[in-house]
Formats: sequence, C-alpha cells, structure tokens
Amino acid sequence: MSKPLRVTVWNEFVHERELPEIRAVYPEGIHGCLRSFLEKEQDITVRCVTLDMPNQGITQELLDNTDVLIWWSHARQEDITDETVRLVRNAVHSGMGLVALHSAHFSRIMRDLLGTTMTLHWRHGDREKLWCIDPTHPIAQGVPACIDIPEEEMYGECFDIPRPDDIIFIGWFAGGQVFRSGVTFTRGRGKIFYFQPGHEEAPVYQHPDIQRIIINAVRWAEPLCRLPAPPDNVEEH
Amino acid sequence: MSKPLRVTVWNEFVHERELPEIRAVYPEGIHGCLRSFLEKEQDITVRCVTLDMPNQGITQELLDNTDVLIWWSHARQEDITDETVRLVRNAVHSGMGLVALHSAHFSRIMRDLLGTTMTLHWRHGDREKLWCIDPTHPIAQGVPACIDIPEEEMYGECFDIPRPDDIIFIGWFAGGQVFRSGVTFTRGRGKIFYFQPGHEEAPVYQHPDIQRIIINAVRWAEPLCRLPAPPDNVEEH
Amino acid sequence: MSKPLRVTVWNEFVHERELPEIRAVYPEGIHGCLRSFLEKEQDITVRCVTLDMPNQGITQELLDNTDVLIWWSHARQEDITDETVRLVRNAVHSGMGLVALHSAHFSRIMRDLLGTTMTLHWRHGDREKLWCIDPTHPIAQGVPACIDIPEEEMYGECFDIPRPDDIIFIGWFAGGQVFRSGVTFTRGRGKIFYFQPGHEEAPVYQHPDIQRIIINAVRWAEPLCRLPAPPDNVEEH
Amino acid sequence: MSKPLRVTVWNEFVHERELPEIRAVYPEGIHGCLRSFLEKEQDITVRCVTLDMPNQGITQELLDNTDVLIWWSHARQEDITDETVRLVRNAVHSGMGLVALHSAHFSRIMRDLLGTTMTLHWRHGDREKLWCIDPTHPIAQGVPACIDIPEEEMYGECFDIPRPDDIIFIGWFAGGQVFRSGVTFTRGRGKIFYFQPGHEEAPVYQHPDIQRIIINAVRWAEPLCRLPAPPDNVEEH
Repeated sequence: MSKPLRVTVWNEFVHERELPEIRAVYPEGIHGCLRSFLEKEQDITVRCVTLDMPNQGITQELLDNTDVLIWWSHARQEDITDETVRLVRNAVHSGMGLVALHSAHFSRIMRDLLGTTMTLHWRHGDREKLWCIDPTHPIAQGVPACIDIPEEEMYGECFDIPRPDDIIFIGWFAGGQVFRSGVTFTRGRGKIFYFQPGHEEAPVYQHPDIQRIIINAVRWAEPLCRLPAPPDNVEEH
Repeated sequence: MSKPLRVTVWNEFVHERELPEIRAVYPEGIHGCLRSFLEKEQDITVRCVTLDMPNQGITQELLDNTDVLIWWSHARQEDITDETVRLVRNAVHSGMGLVALHSAHFSRIMRDLLGTTMTLHWRHGDREKLWCIDPTHPIAQGVPACIDIPEEEMYGECFDIPRPDDIIFIGWFAGGQVFRSGVTFTRGRGKIFYFQPGHEEAPVYQHPDIQRIIINAVRWAEPLCRLPAPPDNVEEH
Repeated sequence: MSKPLRVTVWNEFVHERELPEIRAVYPEGIHGCLRSFLEKEQDITVRCVTLDMPNQGITQELLDNTDVLIWWSHARQEDITDETVRLVRNAVHSGMGLVALHSAHFSRIMRDLLGTTMTLHWRHGDREKLWCIDPTHPIAQGVPACIDIPEEEMYGECFDIPRPDDIIFIGWFAGGQVFRSGVTFTRGRGKIFYFQPGHEEAPVYQHPDIQRIIINAVRWAEPLCRLPAPPDNVEEH
Repeated sequence: MSKPLRVTVWNEFVHERELPEIRAVYPEGIHGCLRSFLEKEQDITVRCVTLDMPNQGITQELLDNTDVLIWWSHARQEDITDETVRLVRNAVHSGMGLVALHSAHFSRIMRDLLGTTMTLHWRHGDREKLWCIDPTHPIAQGVPACIDIPEEEMYGECFDIPRPDDIIFIGWFAGGQVFRSGVTFTRGRGKIFYFQPGHEEAPVYQHPDIQRIIINAVRWAEPLCRLPAPPDNVEEH
C-alpha cells in the first residue's frame, strides 16, 4: 500500500468566528468543511491549522510533514509574518504542493510566490458558471463541462497574475465579467493551484463538483520529487 | 520612409451576395468593410480577393506580395482545395502573417495549420462582452478593458484549439458561455491571430474598437523575418 | 485491480530488415526492444505492428483498443497514406496518447498533428548529453539530471515546432548544437510526447534511463478522458 | 518625431573598481560599455547609475523617467535594500521594462519579481554557443542562428525559474551544459528579459551580436501601457 497523501488545511478562521451568518454556513469553519470531504478519500489524511494558533499555525515541522497545503485567507492578509511567508515559500520551493482558495489570491503567500500584485475586480452578490477549458487536465477529471454556482462573489479580469502554466477553468458571472478561475503555476519544485470559488457567505465548498476539483487538485499537487531544502546554486568542477 | 504593410483581405463572399439581409449589413462585402478602415492607415495597403475568383483568389504571386492575409469564411469551408491550403500553409510557414476571423476557425486553412478539430459550441442571437486579459499585448493597445458587442453569435467553450501562445481576449456571452476570443499561434515563421467576433448578421466590423484590434493584429502579424520558402531539414557537416 | 494500459508499438521496421549493421543493434527490431522493457511493467500490455502489415499496421479496431501509440519512422515517411494519417489523427483527437520517437518528428503523422514543417538540422556520428529542465514533470521522474548517450545522431535547432506545452529535456551535442529533445503537445483530447533520442545505429533504447523516460511517457500520455470520436461543433439551444 | 526611449543602466560597479583585470576589460565600467553602444541608437537616450550612489542609485523620480531599466549585479546581491526592491518592483508592475543581465539572475530584484530561488549550476572558464530557438521574436532580429562567445562563465540547468513566457536563446557550453540563456516574463504591466551572457572577465558586451540582442530587448521591453502606479483591487458596483 502506498503512503497516504498528507494534506494540511490552513484557514484564517476569522469570519466564521466573528460573524454569525458565516458561522451558519460553515459551523466547523471553512477548514472543517474542507476536511470533511477530503478525509473521506482513502489515500488522503487531513490536518487543520488556523491563523490564531502559535506561529500562525505554521511550523517547519508541520510543513516537513505536509505534502499539500490548502490555504484560505481574507481578513488578515497583512498579518502574515515575514517568518511565516518564508517557511511556506521555502516549503513550496522544496516541492510541497499549494492550493490557494478564493481571497487567498491576495495573501502575502501568493504575492510573494507569484511576484505580481494579484489584484482583480470584485463585487458581492453575483452568480457564476464555471467552465472547463482544459478537459485533459488531471484537475478537471470527473467534473462537468460547466458548474453552476448560484451564489458567489464576482472576481473579474484583469487579474494581475503571471502567465499561468495551465488555465483549466474560466468563470462567467451574471453581472458581465469573466475570470481565470482555475490556474496552475510551478515555483521551484512545488506545484500551485489557484481556485477562485469559495466566498464565505455561500456554501460553495459543499458543492460536490467543487469538492471534486479540490480533491483532484490535491492529488495533482502532490510532490513527485521533494527536496530537503530549496535548490541552491551549485559550482561544477 | 519604410515600406507599406501589404494586407490581402481574402473573403468567402457568399452570404453578402446571396442574402439581402446580410448585404444590407455589408453592402461592399465583409472584405469591403475591412478594407475601408484598414486603408485609412498610412502604413497599410490593402488588396481584396474572394473565393469566386480564379484559383479561389489565391496564387503564389499574390502570397509572395502579401505580408498579412486576413481570412473570413463560413459557407464554403469544405470547398477550399488542397492546392489552396498548400499555398497558404507554405506562405505562413515562410513568415506571412494570418488573421483568421470568426467562422474561419473551422476552415481547412486553420485546421491544417493548427492540427486540432477547431470545434466549439455555438448559438445564434446572443450578445457579447469582450474582455482583455493581456493589456501588455500589442494587439490590445488603444482598446478598452471591455468591449460591448450588442449583437453577436455565441461561440462557447470547450474550443478545441492547441494551447495558444497568447490569450488576449475572453468573450462573455449573455446566454452563459465564455470563449477564448482572441488568441495567437506561431507556425513556422508565421504569426497567426484568431479573432472570434464578426458574425455576418450584425455590423461588428464597423465597431471602432473591433477595427482597432484588427489594425493592431495586422501590424503585430507582419513578418519580421520572411523566408523565400518554408524551412527544410539541413544536414550539418 | 485497475485495467492495464494498452500500448501499441508501431514501427516502420525497414532499417532493421535491410541493413545487417542495424539488425545487429536491434535483432528483434526497434519495436521488439521497446516491447521487451515495456512489458516488464505490471500495468502495461504491449502489442506491436509494423508498416509492412495490411493497412500499414493501423486499423480503427487497433486504435480503439490502444491507449498509447508509440511511433518510430524514418525511411518511409512519405509512404504513409492519407487514410492512415486520418485514422491516427482522429484517434489522438479522441484522446489516444502518442509517443513519437526520433526521426518520427518528420512523419506525416506529426506534421499533420502539429501543423509545422517539423524540420531541424542533423548530422550523423555525434554524442549527446540529455539535460532535464523540468524536474517536476511526471515524465522526468526517476531519471538523473543528465543522461550521457555515447553515440547519437545530432538533431539541432532551429527545430520548427509549435510552442510546446512543456519542454522537459534539452539535448547537448558534442559538435556544438542544442535541441529541444523532449517536448509535449496536446491535440484535441490526446497528449503527445516527442522524444529525440533513438538513432537506429546505436543501442539507445537499451539505455535504462531512456527506457525509464519512455515508460513514464506512456503512463503520462494515457487518456484521462477518451471520447468515442473527435469533438464536433455543437449547437446550443 | 516620436519620444526617445529612456534607458537607465543600473550597474553594481564593484568588480570594475576593485579588480584591475576587470577594469582592463571594462575601463568605463560595464555600464559605460552598455551606454556606449545603446546611445548610438537614434531613438534611445541613456542614463547610468551605480550601487554606490545615494539610495543605491534608485529613486522614484529616476524610475518615473525610465522606460527600461538594465541591471547588472554580482558581488553585492544581498546589499540591495527592501526599499530599493520595492521601488523597482512597483515600477515594473506599473509597466517599466527590465533587462536583467548575467549574474543579476540571483539579485533580490529578480527573486522578488519571479518568486523562485533563481539558482543554477556554474563554472568559470568555459565557452558558449548561443542558439536562437525563436527566430520570429523581436529580440532575435538581426542576429545569427548561433553566436560564438569564446570566453564565458558556464551557467547550466537546472535553472530554477518560473515557466518563461518566451524562450528565445539556449546556450551550449563546451564543458557539457545547456542553459535557457534568453527568456522573457511579464509581471504586472512590465516586461522582463533575462539574458545570461556577460561574465565580467571577458568583453562579452563588446560583441556586436550581443549588443544587437540588448538593443532589441530594450525596444521590446518599452512599455506600451504605463500606469501611474501598480494595479490595485477594484470594487465594481
């Protein structure tokens, strides 16, 4: 039997504690919801950490034992410390996979790894149709050509990201915008999937097709070659 | 003074002759409309050919004197002869630029150069918002972030194209679809721009922003290095 | 237990029959050598066909039962019939994987699927160092950063291919050239890997690291979503 | 007459002052050499700054009046301050072009903008053949298919960079390595060209073909759309 895929869900966990209407959507926190469907997969084990824990939930020991980190953030983007950014960046460079969800696009983690402003256009209270434009991609397996998300925050172009390795999903919003909603990047040995759906006010992560995409993404982002540390310059003789 | 950019507009010219309602939109043909705004540019000279001409309008001599070929087709996709395909393909491989408009996606020319089925989903009677996702691209200069096209045929994903070199525009359709509406490819020394807008029933090519994109595309597709013939295998000694 | 991955090795099989010095290198044909190491893998079954068989070895029934086709060709590139090209192209568009080896770059199969001239520079009697530039790619797993190939034909840039999806290997040749030696493309639902090593005069396919790459490529090219036929245009209502 | 392209050459200027053998190669500094051939172009004006100047040579006012920044660094990579990094990053995000030369790959500027470790393999005392693999690229115009650089430091793969937008040049080194020697990226509205040749011990920047590439790169990196500040998130109503 092969080793399980070790997923760590790292959630900011602010809205769910502070706002009753968000707690009603995610009574166990967004991390609790993500855990509940991920741990049903035989090959996946899940651990959850939140920003209010010591060291913001992130330690070297944790990352050394994480194959794929899932990250959701919104209200405390600027609170992430230099040290936390450094730990996560080094882990990605060494091969750890990273799945960044929704408003985590604007986290220090993502801006640091991708090198752009990660800015976009947004509006509350829209609905989305999520189209797959790369049906051969592992992350797109088992999901329909179009997923209806009846309630979602609008994220619209122009999305200031580097050119992605793959564009898998494009979002259509009823208000008139489009968005590159599922995109991949590589940084060092680490694979990154950014996935736009998941505004906290609607139960987007309870949608079976959205869950399928996240499960696929976790398997896709598993490191094939993990280094003990980020690569360094090497003098040849 | 630099040499003018020699554009040849190659139009199928069937709908405009056969259907009065299309002729009302484009009384001089789609090629006539394209010529009218292109030839206002000081650096561009325009020649028009149509499918009903001898050799389907395409000869080696014409292509040798064409920097960029613009191609619109729909009703006679399968009538293009092997010889016409061969002449155009060789010219592109040698460096001639190609701008393929709207239903020309499914022409033998485009299927032969790109190697996929070039299929898509479609529906008459929609409207489009055309979003720019690559504002640094030469083809996107001087056009707004979003162009409203009040009447347009819907073209929707999944669009069976190879991975484009650049994705510049994404179309949003009121009926719920999205589309990679402005994409580039390179084949041999030739640059190719495929641009989705331009259904014959609405005056899309009379829209100043659409005209700006086509003018930009023509300048972008101009060959920087034109070979006398397609590249061949070379034995080194 | 999951279904085995069905590989068909399609070999031109001309040099090995006609030239004693090539037969000495590959007494069972190049296809025999490829089969011998592929069929040692538990999850892979192998069938071999050659160009001298009826229908050039290729039938609809064969392709329907092939997950990944491996193709080696050289002396008879122009003999491949339109019908054989059509069958293989449609199978790739429907999802069949394709691994094209060495001089198959210039086959009608590859020129038709990729849309360029597929030309390059070449010279007999060189040696190669094959460098991996994408260590995160599934095809690169388990192979060293550099593979020494003591005897190999030189293939050099400029290689007239479309922009690849992935560039995994770059070849260094003692005579002074470089080459994009391992590259991927997608056409329709089918994944394509082109791999340069394998000149018939040296036992390149007996090299364990080269075998590892081909085994990896076969697993990578397995269709995740196979259609019954190539995608077609669809009218939405 | 169109406005001149305003180039600022930013040079570390340490080796040329401290080491007589480097000063012998570049008596006016590397920046002096770059200036000498750039300012011969009618459309280009050049200003030079060095790391020993106040604010490390970089001010907001300077960057506001710079279309393209050329950057060479080696001995003082870690001395670049957070504020200098911030100023340059914001200028690139707003549209300023950046040409990073040779060992500047490992500068804080480049690591911050690209998000990887930017590490590689290296060895003094090699020679290089620089091959063009994208002859249609504006940066490749007017240069031969292969440039011989008789004395150059070896930079070898695996080069830890994000997937480039374009790979234009691949370097071959006599010692057996290959390298992606000329690559482009986009960050925000800014275009970036990284170019490997230019070890300080040999007069590489006096080579006319190397100069042609740098002149081409400067013209290519000129902003087509410069923003007053990096893009920000925008709420739509």
